[in-house]
Amino acid sequence: MEILITNDDGIYAEGIYALACALKKAGNVTVVAPDTQRSAVGHAITLSDPLRVTEARRNGKFFGYAASGTPADCVKLGIKAIMKRRPDLVVSGINLGGNQAYNILYSGTVSGATEGALLGIPSMAVSLDTFVKPDYGPSAAFALKMARQLGRRGLPPGTLLNVNLPNLPARRLKGVRVTSQSRTCFNDWFDKRTDPHGSTYYWMTGDFKPVDTNASTDLNALRAGYVSVTPIHFDLTNYSFMPELEEWGLGL
Amino acid sequence: MEILITNDDGIYAEGIYALACALKKAGNVTVVAPDTQRSAVGHAITLSDPLRVTEARRNGKFFGYAASGTPADCVKLGIKAIMKRRPDLVVSGINLGGNQAYNILYSGTVSGATEGALLGIPSMAVSLDTFVKPDYGPSAAFALKMARQLGRRGLPPGTLLNVNLPNLPARRLKGVRVTSQSRTCFNDWFDKRTDPHGSTYYWMTGDFKPVDTNASTDLNALRAGYVSVTPIHFDLTNYSFMPELEEWGLGL
Repeated sequence: MEILITNDDGIYAEGIYALACALKKAGNVTVVAPDTQRSAVGHAITLSDPLRVTEARRNGKFFGYAASGTPADCVKLGIKAIMKRRPDLVVSGINLGGNQAYNILYSGTVSGATEGALLGIPSMAVSLDTFVKPDYGPSAAFALKMARQLGRRGLPPGTLLNVNLPNLPARRLKGVRVTSQSRTCFNDWFDKRTDPHGSTYYWMTGDFKPVDTNASTDLNALRAGYVSVTPIHFDLTNYSFMPELEEWGLGL
Repeated sequence: MEILITNDDGIYAEGIYALACALKKAGNVTVVAPDTQRSAVGHAITLSDPLRVTEARRNGKFFGYAASGTPADCVKLGIKAIMKRRPDLVVSGINLGGNQAYNILYSGTVSGATEGALLGIPSMAVSLDTFVKPDYGPSAAFALKMARQLGRRGLPPGTLLNVNLPNLPARRLKGVRVTSQSRTCFNDWFDKRTDPHGSTYYWMTGDFKPVDTNASTDLNALRAGYVSVTPIHFDLTNYSFMPELEEWGLGL
């Protein structure tokens, strides 16, 4: 199996190293990842600048290709310019920090996997729901298991998997749940400050609003100690609202 | 009606000026837009840098607030830091270039409206499907009409409207269609070049694959000379695939 790996924390992050080491047990791994951290870039692509690619070494050995772009750029580059064979699987991660609820809209990690799915390849994003003391071991082991499943079963066109793990040792993980995307929003605000030169600037900050009560969401599965696996797609059409919108009688 | 306007072409673009002038007929307009062009930024937000806001003048008069961030940043800033009253409507555009099919995933214009909807405000994105000789008149007139409808009717939670117009004079527009997002992909590739110093770089380029045959999509409505109005939402869960995924029997 040919596997393309990317992330949004950058090619020198700990999570992508753990992922690449684990997935080598399932096939040939090619890493193409941003040369620096690109978190919260959403599904951005680089149109107005040329992209640079350099070889990256880790622990004294060739590890992969570092690109001057976003995760979506990296997946396009990997498939269309770097890999000799089309990959059978695209995996993005392991992200430091969960990607659940509406946060997946901002997620570079998810967008890497989305780009793989757009290009017709079974794809998944893997994130570890913590910012402190991450233990990537259980996530890497689960990613390997999922990679083998995906290699065998594939996914429907236009669908990818968004996988999140709580930061727990393997023995304390309660199991795996197929989940839906929580509709809980991030509650953000701005911290307004003045710089030493008297000019105003703003820092964005925030937290999650109270958790929804739907036990089958990604957010609640994680909080209960389960691995969450959410199938997502990118036909954003709200079909159920179309008949009502037709009744608006829109005209010029 | 309080109206917040943003875009991704930047506060000095022609399209946002046409939009702001038109919407002043429907309410109080506040413009908060990127200080430079931010196309194809997807739903990015700025977490690792502070945001700067300056006042922007056009035609010798105060026009709005220029921010050092993405369209999603601008909408957050507008609502949470700049406007005294919460807006009744968020409008993003008028974009130079259509935002249809899977391209909406990369679109800064759509992401501005998405952010408005995430914050619970009726929102729409407006794009003009051309890169040459844009005539923003018909788009601005239609945006005004839609803004009044949205002010009166609102939208269901988590839903926004993605509006595209063909670049035709008003008398040649054939009408308005409620559409779904086309599943046609952008077919992109890389132009590999060598710089004067001998280093390799890549330019991303591409075109649409052959158009789908479904007449009710945004892409085909535009090609047939209609204005397309697509209701979109951002619960990305592929609910129909969940039962099959349950049958995979995922475990640790």
